[in-house]
Amino acid sequence: MLDLIRSLVISGETKIVFLSSDGLGGLPRPETGRSELETARLPHLSRLATEAACGLIRHVAPGITPGSGPGHLGLFGYDPLHYQVGRGVLEALGIDFELGAGDIAARGNFCTVDASGRITDRRAGRIPTETCVRLVERLRQIRLPGVEVLVEPVKEHRFVLVLRGSGSGSRLSETDPQVLGKPPLPVRALDDASRRTAEIVNAFVDEARRRLADAAPANMILLRGFDQRPDLPPFPDVFGLRAGAIAAYPMYRGLARLVGMEVLKTGATFADEVATVRQHWASYDFFFLHYKDTDKAGEDGDFDAKVAALERLDAFVPEIRDLGPDVLVITGDHATPSVLAAHGWQPVPALLWSRYCGADPVTAFTERACATGTLGVLPAHHLMPLVMANALRLTKFGA
Amino acid sequence: MLDLIRSLVISGETKIVFLSSDGLGGLPRPETGRSELETARLPHLSRLATEAACGLIRHVAPGITPGSGPGHLGLFGYDPLHYQVGRGVLEALGIDFELGAGDIAARGNFCTVDASGRITDRRAGRIPTETCVRLVERLRQIRLPGVEVLVEPVKEHRFVLVLRGSGSGSRLSETDPQVLGKPPLPVRALDDASRRTAEIVNAFVDEARRRLADAAPANMILLRGFDQRPDLPPFPDVFGLRAGAIAAYPMYRGLARLVGMEVLKTGATFADEVATVRQHWASYDFFFLHYKDTDKAGEDGDFDAKVAALERLDAFVPEIRDLGPDVLVITGDHATPSVLAAHGWQPVPALLWSRYCGADPVTAFTERACATGTLGVLPAHHLMPLVMANALRLTKFGA
Repeated sequence: MLDLIRSLVISGETKIVFLSSDGLGGLPRPETGRSELETARLPHLSRLATEAACGLIRHVAPGITPGSGPGHLGLFGYDPLHYQVGRGVLEALGIDFELGAGDIAARGNFCTVDASGRITDRRAGRIPTETCVRLVERLRQIRLPGVEVLVEPVKEHRFVLVLRGSGSGSRLSETDPQVLGKPPLPVRALDDASRRTAEIVNAFVDEARRRLADAAPANMILLRGFDQRPDLPPFPDVFGLRAGAIAAYPMYRGLARLVGMEVLKTGATFADEVATVRQHWASYDFFFLHYKDTDKAGEDGDFDAKVAALERLDAFVPEIRDLGPDVLVITGDHATPSVLAAHGWQPVPALLWSRYCGADPVTAFTERACATGTLGVLPAHHLMPLVMANALRLTKFGA
Repeated sequence: MLDLIRSLVISGETKIVFLSSDGLGGLPRPETGRSELETARLPHLSRLATEAACGLIRHVAPGITPGSGPGHLGLFGYDPLHYQVGRGVLEALGIDFELGAGDIAARGNFCTVDASGRITDRRAGRIPTETCVRLVERLRQIRLPGVEVLVEPVKEHRFVLVLRGSGSGSRLSETDPQVLGKPPLPVRALDDASRRTAEIVNAFVDEARRRLADAAPANMILLRGFDQRPDLPPFPDVFGLRAGAIAAYPMYRGLARLVGMEVLKTGATFADEVATVRQHWASYDFFFLHYKDTDKAGEDGDFDAKVAALERLDAFVPEIRDLGPDVLVITGDHATPSVLAAHGWQPVPALLWSRYCGADPVTAFTERACATGTLGVLPAHHLMPLVMANALRLTKFGA
């Protein structure tokens, strides 16, 4: 499919703004029967929905709850079942770590083991991040032959391990036995190409055990989610777009960088992000803009906070429209219903506005209203071709 | 896809009731422009549809009319184009015959041949079932070297032949020439692995001809639909569910057994079936419940009887809801429009109720209303992942 799109791309002067409101979709609050989107006052989004083509976006498959990685890959036009991103890679992206080709990344946990080496706490009592930073310094002292070892703190008990230059594979089993009372497992190679990596990792873990012996409760480590950057056809090549990504949170910058977008420096607020779009308006064809607050409130299970986050987003719509995009898309990477306090599998409202988006009966930007829109229930990776068409950047297929 | 689901399954305490109303979907009666579902008074189903997510289920592909086998495999989560069940196997399932691995089943007909062996009636004048039972006794006397021969009467001129322990394949041509005035065809092996089976079957047919010579009009047999049990990943393994099936009709017990569900002993009525669910409530996570009356009335072309069957089903809805399922699904294995008096290709209304099923504009359980629901037009085998998600029994895909 991406090859087909690439073969049809034509150049143009049109501008596209693609806004992902993280965890956008929700569920009705039982007391009122209305979802967050149905409860919020969203005059600008309602008006835009009235003028736009609307629908519901499904990111992976029916019933499958997307993580942020698959959710965004889908929005960027990549089938997330075909292009899978490992957990180690996502953890590295989440701290803005620039993974090179061939780098092998893993998620690390500090954990607690007893005198005989058996795990007593898989998260080392969630040590403070400062302790994590200090202990990561110890792990950074580890030297192994023929490979560069990089260790980065994340948060509390979590860190990232990156092996650079091993020239070996990343198909490895995990060291976390997932239960208490057992020692960490040695890593096993799951294919021949990963044998040398398994040796390196086991040597690293042995050395880590020695260096952390006196650091209880964080006196051992667990490693999982070994992976390398997936080999993705770059977004700017496939779609012929100069693509800039604006996101205050590192994970989303990382995902945009993964597909080859340029990450633009911005501030901590959504107002900063919108200002960044304006500042770079002339230099890019496609702006990926990320809004985090909807997801944060949903994850906290705070229905009212999510309603407020939606209303804050709504207030920015006129400013974004004033930029004069030819195509404006607003959707999300997954649902985060407040009643679930977690990512959900529900399809996510989407609107696509352009001069050519077509007549649509939808007059509100809600789950229920978008279910009746002309986009239907659309796989997320089918959205980008529609965006390209509305930007008049695809020629016809066949004569 | 089943592998993906299996990798995401998490354990839980939630209960699922999955009700298949056989031949549920219909078509408008020309006089009124209203379908069976639109004509029936269904207060409980309407209320449930209002609270549920609704849609239309397509079992195989647009325009394809599903048999009961593919229809149910789809509902159970198996793509029926990928997992095909032969007609001989379905005939055996339909009489509660427990097919073992390696058993080769075929559909048999008694037929009439003239003095020169040419077929004059492919159904032997639809002999009474008692005659079929008596003649099957003759066929059971046939002994062949190296294989156990099992013959079971079905109804009128129909019987099932099962070859056990041949260790050989089941890819065979049919003996029915499908026209009158020709003799039955010898069976041919369609691959090398099935050569020995072809020899056995031809020997069986020769012996049957001899033993039936004086039994006109049922003086010969025709065999078709040779097949073995398909190799399906078991439902309880894929979905991590203790699954119990409750069906008064043998065909549906057989289909449930085929995917590895436990078949629970029940009575002849739907009231018995619902009582059986209640009785086993604590012991299973998933209950497959089958309602036959809608299909029967549709097959008879009796619009009013189908309306009545729907109203009887509606009356059971409160009792089923009172069991307290976390997820309740009501749909069917195919349409049986009364105006067709046969299975139809039309997509079938479906509703999925849970605390997390989401807002949906649908307020009636009809073909027309469900077409505007948030489930959209859903391939049947995508329903089980949604059921699993709503039962909070799937973890997210990607971080």
